[in-house]
Amino acid sequence: MYDSGGLEILSEEECRRLITAAPLGRIVFTDRALPAIQPVNFVISRGEVIIRTSSGSKLAAAARNAVVAFEVDEFDPSVHTGWSVVIVGHARVLSENGELTHVRSLPLRTWAPADHDYYIAIRPELISGRRLPKAA
Amino acid sequence: MYDSGGLEILSEEECRRLITAAPLGRIVFTDRALPAIQPVNFVISRGEVIIRTSSGSKLAAAARNAVVAFEVDEFDPSVHTGWSVVIVGHARVLSENGELTHVRSLPLRTWAPADHDYYIAIRPELISGRRLPKAA
Repeated sequence: MYDSGGLEILSEEECRRLITAAPLGRIVFTDRALPAIQPVNFVISRGEVIIRTSSGSKLAAAARNAVVAFEVDEFDPSVHTGWSVVIVGHARVLSENGELTHVRSLPLRTWAPADHDYYIAIRPELISGRRLPKAA
Repeated sequence: MYDSGGLEILSEEECRRLITAAPLGRIVFTDRALPAIQPVNFVISRGEVIIRTSSGSKLAAAARNAVVAFEVDEFDPSVHTGWSVVIVGHARVLSENGELTHVRSLPLRTWAPADHDYYIAIRPELISGRRLPKAA
């Protein structure tokens, strides 16, 4: 299946497979009424995207029960191939003890130097993915 | 200069240098009240980000005089280094003959197979960038 732009439409199963293997994604949110985007590393746990941030970050403030997008991609600019997967869903800050104990046990270390004691979970409500055809 | 997350704050000059050298970015917009993001190749011309899309695309519909974000990044997951630059500004669909003649002369071929006869320009109004420190 191809979309109107000639890109291959990926199945939900393939989208989930690609996201799980990716080291880095980008979270898209609204910051003071403006579109905002921030690269983050993450893990998938119990079907949710789990990311860490610091309590004072724009992301922590913006992600409280907001609808966000989360994007992962991989492209090879030399041959113009690649794919991207986008999840849209509600983000929530994890605060319940059982959940925190669980996510703190995950292999999720932030790449930034500062403390990142806030965990945000995104439950996928929409998943879509596209791939550039090899011959493009 | 470092932000509260311990990331190096990049100067506007360095942000512009990094964006100019990048092959691919991601445009962040709103699609039917939901956050949307799409990878796109681009060129910088006359200080604006120029991208191509097809007339029927979600992006073409969403980018008419909307405020969008445009992000470029480069990370090395093996050593947790990298940077990202984000531009925020108004997007407009180019329609004036002189502008179209100019952008059609740019080295901007879309990677997708379908026709991409719409040109969108984003004029940067905010530019910000961050870099992960090497020692992180």
